[in-house]
Amino acid sequence: MTNKDVRTPASVQDEQSPEAGKSIGWHKAYVEGTRPDLRVPVRQVHLTNGESVTLYDTSGAYTDPLVDTDVRRGLPPLRENWIIARGDTEEYAGRPVRPEDDGIKHTSPRGGLRNLDAVFPGRPRQPRRGRGGQAVTQLAYARRGEITPEMEFVALRENVSPEVVREEIAAGRAVLPANVNHPEIEPMIIGKRFLVKVNANIGNSAVTSSIEEEVEKMTWATRWGADTVMDLSTGRNIHTTREWVLRNSPVPIGTVPLYQALEKVDGRAEELTWEVYKDTVIEQAEQGVDYMTVHAGVRLAYVPLTANRKTGIVSRGGSIMAAWCLAHHKESFLYENFEELCEILAAYDVTYSLGDGLRPGSIADANDEAQFAELRTLGELNTIAKRFHVQTMIEGPGHVPMHKIKENIDLQQEICDEAPFYTLGPLTTDVAPAYDHITSGIGAAMIAWWGTAMLCYVTPKEHLGLPNRDDVKTGVITYKIAAHAADLAKGHPGAQEWDDALSDARFEFRWEDQFNLALDPDTAREFHDETLPAEPAKTAHFCSMCGPKFCSMKISQDIRREHGTGRAETDIEEGMAQKSKEFAAAGNRVYLPIAE
Amino acid sequence: MTNKDVRTPASVQDEQSPEAGKSIGWHKAYVEGTRPDLRVPVRQVHLTNGESVTLYDTSGAYTDPLVDTDVRRGLPPLRENWIIARGDTEEYAGRPVRPEDDGIKHTSPRGGLRNLDAVFPGRPRQPRRGRGGQAVTQLAYARRGEITPEMEFVALRENVSPEVVREEIAAGRAVLPANVNHPEIEPMIIGKRFLVKVNANIGNSAVTSSIEEEVEKMTWATRWGADTVMDLSTGRNIHTTREWVLRNSPVPIGTVPLYQALEKVDGRAEELTWEVYKDTVIEQAEQGVDYMTVHAGVRLAYVPLTANRKTGIVSRGGSIMAAWCLAHHKESFLYENFEELCEILAAYDVTYSLGDGLRPGSIADANDEAQFAELRTLGELNTIAKRFHVQTMIEGPGHVPMHKIKENIDLQQEICDEAPFYTLGPLTTDVAPAYDHITSGIGAAMIAWWGTAMLCYVTPKEHLGLPNRDDVKTGVITYKIAAHAADLAKGHPGAQEWDDALSDARFEFRWEDQFNLALDPDTAREFHDETLPAEPAKTAHFCSMCGPKFCSMKISQDIRREHGTGRAETDIEEGMAQKSKEFAAAGNRVYLPIAE
Repeated sequence: MTNKDVRTPASVQDEQSPEAGKSIGWHKAYVEGTRPDLRVPVRQVHLTNGESVTLYDTSGAYTDPLVDTDVRRGLPPLRENWIIARGDTEEYAGRPVRPEDDGIKHTSPRGGLRNLDAVFPGRPRQPRRGRGGQAVTQLAYARRGEITPEMEFVALRENVSPEVVREEIAAGRAVLPANVNHPEIEPMIIGKRFLVKVNANIGNSAVTSSIEEEVEKMTWATRWGADTVMDLSTGRNIHTTREWVLRNSPVPIGTVPLYQALEKVDGRAEELTWEVYKDTVIEQAEQGVDYMTVHAGVRLAYVPLTANRKTGIVSRGGSIMAAWCLAHHKESFLYENFEELCEILAAYDVTYSLGDGLRPGSIADANDEAQFAELRTLGELNTIAKRFHVQTMIEGPGHVPMHKIKENIDLQQEICDEAPFYTLGPLTTDVAPAYDHITSGIGAAMIAWWGTAMLCYVTPKEHLGLPNRDDVKTGVITYKIAAHAADLAKGHPGAQEWDDALSDARFEFRWEDQFNLALDPDTAREFHDETLPAEPAKTAHFCSMCGPKFCSMKISQDIRREHGTGRAETDIEEGMAQKSKEFAAAGNRVYLPIAE
Repeated sequence: MTNKDVRTPASVQDEQSPEAGKSIGWHKAYVEGTRPDLRVPVRQVHLTNGESVTLYDTSGAYTDPLVDTDVRRGLPPLRENWIIARGDTEEYAGRPVRPEDDGIKHTSPRGGLRNLDAVFPGRPRQPRRGRGGQAVTQLAYARRGEITPEMEFVALRENVSPEVVREEIAAGRAVLPANVNHPEIEPMIIGKRFLVKVNANIGNSAVTSSIEEEVEKMTWATRWGADTVMDLSTGRNIHTTREWVLRNSPVPIGTVPLYQALEKVDGRAEELTWEVYKDTVIEQAEQGVDYMTVHAGVRLAYVPLTANRKTGIVSRGGSIMAAWCLAHHKESFLYENFEELCEILAAYDVTYSLGDGLRPGSIADANDEAQFAELRTLGELNTIAKRFHVQTMIEGPGHVPMHKIKENIDLQQEICDEAPFYTLGPLTTDVAPAYDHITSGIGAAMIAWWGTAMLCYVTPKEHLGLPNRDDVKTGVITYKIAAHAADLAKGHPGAQEWDDALSDARFEFRWEDQFNLALDPDTAREFHDETLPAEPAKTAHFCSMCGPKFCSMKISQDIRREHGTGRAETDIEEGMAQKSKEFAAAGNRVYLPIAE
């Protein structure tokens, strides 16, 4: 065991079990790699039958009682030595932070120059970038045949060989988002050969929410299984919120730089320039943003294709770029300057998430010409990005009825050389506002089965308001279900072990094991206790649904007891008449008599 | 307008709008058929733009302010005159109700003989059956070429011709469950050419819940869209609970007679006999149960096939029959007496729901030999039932990973001559107790797209406890989403009009219309108000997600305004340079400036 420096057993914190000292049935463990500082976190569930089950864990140091975390200090920079050891990056002064980065107008009395130390109280830091502007991306390393510690980390996490990880990244079929300025992350990989991942969006808006809330939403989302988090803040304190989120996040952080750029020009799309945008990208890259959504596929010529749509352009980024194109009657500055953008991203290892600005916002608009015209452009941009060794994934819809979903992933894979697809849902109907986690969970599970690598969650508040803490949890859990259902359907090695362990526990009435193995142990336990709160009911060989007389699991156990397991069927059948007699002799009681 | 007798405007009751007098944006309307007493209920949503949308309505008279409902009196017997007019049924004394029908032991001091009038205070009634035991089923009529008022009713409801309804029923591809002793129902149809239907299970158990609760759960489930309700009660007052549910239900009621039969033999499976079972079926048929789950496919030879399963037999009915077969080492008495059972059901027009007693209860057990052996027997029984003119549907699983779902519906359709498939989910993973409405909603949507006619809902309490009111609503809404997503994917005529109307409202910021068109208007409105409670926000041209500056819908509207609609794309493109100038001249403002 290493990292003793961050382990302070004297300050045990266990965020998951408010009742200290209570046996919680699982603990945070680490799988060690080939070097002492390469330790992959897992959730080790201890079953009452003495067995244990190892589950993928995204919750970071917050669930390790041996690590003393403090959001004002940030997480330990796990990857720092790996990055430094590569010797291909350098620290530099960095772009000064300006009041307008936080949406503060020049005339505001609250203005004034600040620096990173001022906005985040953690350790002093300077940004880092590729020496001489070189590409310091996992893609560049993979292409050179190098297996980085990050690759080994995800190989252990995914239970595959490091060479498989390297190959998938080198081929552009997977991305490992890991900005050199975000050393705090526990590396993860996004690609169709790996476990399906889930992204959770957070972010304040001009209307509501605060910095503290956003940091808390991030740790909350990762606790329930979010693999990445996008900070989509649009209001005040956009720079500072992001700094706090990054310094405290164990997962890669994504953003849409266009939102902040627009804030800098007071929300006037036509005043956006390549220079303002580029400055914003550098600002965010220096902070450590791991992937950026770039709506460079919204070209001038495609805007009219949306005019007769039922719901026009529903992507914020897409509509901003469309408005800019219209205002100037010019080709998109993102499209025009895409190569320079690639050079910037390559120097920090920021991964592209090529945005689908023209994604359909209703069932009626699914798979239309605007959407697929943009997809073809994304394919073209993917090729360019790869030339600059920039890791790239492609965003997808949106609102799509079930029978039109497969065409989306098939076309994307063909047009974009199998680059990872990253979809928002899709929502399979428009009629259920307040339940769009479900309308989209259906589409998400299907498209992930067919090859989508990461799913962007949708919360119950979609179309209606900003998600609160409960909504974030519901969104993440729903999407973890979709992702795991897809892992099962893809036959991902080891995926079914989790289901098997839970079903074994269910069949054997090991209630505590069922709860501890559940995606959401708290709610499972709460629902059980609601009907049968008594402690003995936790070991009862029946449950409240059927009561003691009707329990089918109980009857099945009797059948198994009668017939044993592992014997050939013919033996069993031959032995049945005899068994039948024994069964009768034993009183013919397959049910417990119910108390009058 | 007819049925004036039941319309008492003086006693206006509106269960959906507790604030009397408030404009609620929709009203209960009726589509009249070829006869004055044939009126099909619909939910007419009135939009703020003057248009209206007609939605399918399952909520019964309870949502009609002009009907004075009283659960102690029961619903008006809408179909009574149709049944009498056919002249092929007769009233008779009926089987006397016995104390044990309600689970009251002979030794109980609370025992004593009771009759129907005693257990339900509504109008006196005698049961009815086919004169001379003849088949009085919708299948028999359809085969004779008769279009019954029930068929016309569902034709209007589904917006198809009555002849299509008759053909589908005659071919056995659809069922119209309508016991001659349940005249209260508003007829509905279950078949793959029609809208996908949803069943909600209710029922008390030995452990918890009461009669009042079950009646209330039934009206609550149908209010949110349940097309049928199964009463799976197993504890006390099983007969009386069912009587209350039947007399107050506007939708067909299904049961599993085996549960009550087992109660009559004190929960001792081996003491079950064909006589006790048959008596129970007659008891329930006389009360008016519209369809019955019969686990006649669990044959002696299949029981050993389950011995090595991960979760054995998870169907209560299946496990009871398996226990009986084992105890006696005999073939199932349901299988052996199936023809006699057909004769009984035909005389009341009770529809078979051939139960899948060996359905898989875990991902590991999906699509195994036990499951498909039973399915082949269900195919055989389907053929026999049809010979007796008994309407028949086939039940399906259960727990099935996504890649194994399609095989279930394809095999069932092939083996059972396209009889309607009626599945429980399927659940696509085992790992999410407390969220099995979602794990199963995914599978339900997919299997319905591929041809399943009715989906049995799963609530969040599945595997954990008995559903309460909130769970019933969540289960129904989740399954209405799955069903509608499937209707869209199947290209069901008219299905997309609902989505289009809601998306139009969304695009045009008609918030009240969005709420009123939503599957759950109450929750949609509540979620919106949580972030932006002010009344002006209901007409705001933005929402809390993006705030006024970033609203993509707003930007899209500007684009549409710039480019108009209905013009050819080339015109639009040619006009763009000009438009761009106008746009600039107008101030280049696509966003509202945000207040400092």
